[in-house]
Amino acid sequence: MKKRLFTPGPSAVPEEVLLEMAKPIVHHRTREFFDIANEALEGLRYFFQTKGDVAIFSSSGTGAMEAALVNSVSAGDGVLVLSAGKFGERFASIGKAYGCHVQSIEPGWGNPFDLAEVERVLRKDPKIRAVCATLCETSTASSCDIEGIGKIVRQYPETILIVDGISGLGAVPCKTDAWGLDMVVSGSQKALMLPPGLSFLSVSEKAWNAIERSTLPKFYFDLKQYRIARKKNDFPWTMAVSLIRGLKKALDLIQEETLEIMWKRHHIRAEAVRAAAKALGLKVFSKTPSDAVTAILLPEEVKGDLFVSQLRDKFGITFAGGQDSLKGKIVRISHFGWQDEFDTLTAISALEVMLTEHGYPCDPGIGVKVATPILFS
Amino acid sequence: MKKRLFTPGPSAVPEEVLLEMAKPIVHHRTREFFDIANEALEGLRYFFQTKGDVAIFSSSGTGAMEAALVNSVSAGDGVLVLSAGKFGERFASIGKAYGCHVQSIEPGWGNPFDLAEVERVLRKDPKIRAVCATLCETSTASSCDIEGIGKIVRQYPETILIVDGISGLGAVPCKTDAWGLDMVVSGSQKALMLPPGLSFLSVSEKAWNAIERSTLPKFYFDLKQYRIARKKNDFPWTMAVSLIRGLKKALDLIQEETLEIMWKRHHIRAEAVRAAAKALGLKVFSKTPSDAVTAILLPEEVKGDLFVSQLRDKFGITFAGGQDSLKGKIVRISHFGWQDEFDTLTAISALEVMLTEHGYPCDPGIGVKVATPILFS
Repeated sequence: MKKRLFTPGPSAVPEEVLLEMAKPIVHHRTREFFDIANEALEGLRYFFQTKGDVAIFSSSGTGAMEAALVNSVSAGDGVLVLSAGKFGERFASIGKAYGCHVQSIEPGWGNPFDLAEVERVLRKDPKIRAVCATLCETSTASSCDIEGIGKIVRQYPETILIVDGISGLGAVPCKTDAWGLDMVVSGSQKALMLPPGLSFLSVSEKAWNAIERSTLPKFYFDLKQYRIARKKNDFPWTMAVSLIRGLKKALDLIQEETLEIMWKRHHIRAEAVRAAAKALGLKVFSKTPSDAVTAILLPEEVKGDLFVSQLRDKFGITFAGGQDSLKGKIVRISHFGWQDEFDTLTAISALEVMLTEHGYPCDPGIGVKVATPILFS
Repeated sequence: MKKRLFTPGPSAVPEEVLLEMAKPIVHHRTREFFDIANEALEGLRYFFQTKGDVAIFSSSGTGAMEAALVNSVSAGDGVLVLSAGKFGERFASIGKAYGCHVQSIEPGWGNPFDLAEVERVLRKDPKIRAVCATLCETSTASSCDIEGIGKIVRQYPETILIVDGISGLGAVPCKTDAWGLDMVVSGSQKALMLPPGLSFLSVSEKAWNAIERSTLPKFYFDLKQYRIARKKNDFPWTMAVSLIRGLKKALDLIQEETLEIMWKRHHIRAEAVRAAAKALGLKVFSKTPSDAVTAILLPEEVKGDLFVSQLRDKFGITFAGGQDSLKGKIVRISHFGWQDEFDTLTAISALEVMLTEHGYPCDPGIGVKVATPILFS
């Protein structure tokens, strides 16, 4: 059975990237490897839209979220988390695990943040050393006004802005330097079109100053050790050489396409799926939908978990279901990874077929009809 | 140019494992992936020789070394490190980074440990909660009597034994349960014949008790979160699905061969290289050489770094040089990874050719002559 991944991570990887990673192993302390790694780092700077440092870790995205906090704050420091989904909550959990004083702004899953409230909280509590926000909250498929938050946080010289860009970066605009984002976290298995296993963390000058002050314990994720090694054109630990090979290749493809075109294509695909959902009489869950992934509320009579597993088992098409409080209630369709406009139509057709099978009859093609002109105009 | 890796990590990966990892990405929360992962975990239990738990992390081996300590001890706890090389020293650095009271037994690089001293120190200081030892100290290519240390530490009910088996496991005997090893760390890029990117940590019942007491902060490497997820047949974070695919395949090959045959083959290859070195008038560096990797002291007139880089650039053959105080003085030839007995002869021939080029003339074949009967008897 042919398989198609529409999950918001991991995403499908281009065949040429898969084969690049299947090449024989090179030693991680050779010129051959450093040439590949340095080109990949140059590509990452473009991907992050920064002239600053981007660190690469072998870990899931959560590892780099932890790296951001343990390197920049100390026990007892205030951490303000903008939390409206599972991944916002994760920032809060990490901060608490390390003894930070965590405050969360929680408008509820899928709801937008009131930036005036962010400003109020920051003004009231001068001990806040880090603000954590999420570019695309994958659990609710919501976007967030990171540019606006950047404008607020940059006014506080001792407070940094940490952005979880794991599932958003590359899919939606995010300009690390121009927007004043001090640390942006990302992962390999999303718009970068790589397997999971690598995570990334950009570090601004302001963040480096915070790193100097931080006293939280760390070792594997220690950015100071990382910087010392990089100054000798080395890395502190053994790098995942095959994934780095793939990273370089994937970034070559992205630079060839350009981020502007990538952002536009993700936007168009998301618009197409949102229009199709509407045509099918369904609602998009989020009040501020992201262009990286779309969450569609299922009709009440449809059992979401069964819907997702049957789609996968019968047709090889994998959507994601809902997490935690959204379990069984939504399906999430990603717009990133190795997919094109015809794949988007396939996802919409799959939705139509499976909805009908689940007792929510829809005329075949009703979603495709409205999506096609959006995708191909 | 054909390339051959004899470095003590990363090692060469079998072609069929490379191609297994090039298969299309599966989602990490599907039955298909859990089936692969659970078979890999079963294979890891065999590889570690344990009926207990083995955790998989996306990280380098250093990450799992940190995981072992941060999960099992608390700030101020005593940690005894048996340190006679770079990786013993790393355990000490991690313990210090987390505020443990670290004591090291340091016989000097390449020298063996006096087990009576280990016993004396443990008896004198009842606050020691963890003893850290290294199965194969890669920096000096030395073995360590882990079985003997296990017999001592098991007498202390509140002290666990943590073993860095990163470059030793699979190459030399190491019986986690039978020897009473509470936590054994390993990595993907050594005898397991995978690319770097995964690390592993076995956990005994005694170690789980220590984990209950530990108060050090942790999140990504938190074994309690890991255990909660595993109870639901899940993993806490997104797993590196392509590497896990390769892991299952590599462990299939290892189980087919059996560990006993693997250990014997590594021993024979190491014996062959040691005999060849002797025939060439050279000395093995370590007083207790490991069968995982051999470190050969170069003649004084040979510049070690140039030796290694020329071998790589001219012939595509990669040995490792020395690290830190051994920089330029030794070459290290690994016996693990995707190599057979003819590869061992190739390594010996390469040594002969390059020694002659560096002004240390040796009759061609003098090493091969003594190694061949050892390899093929």
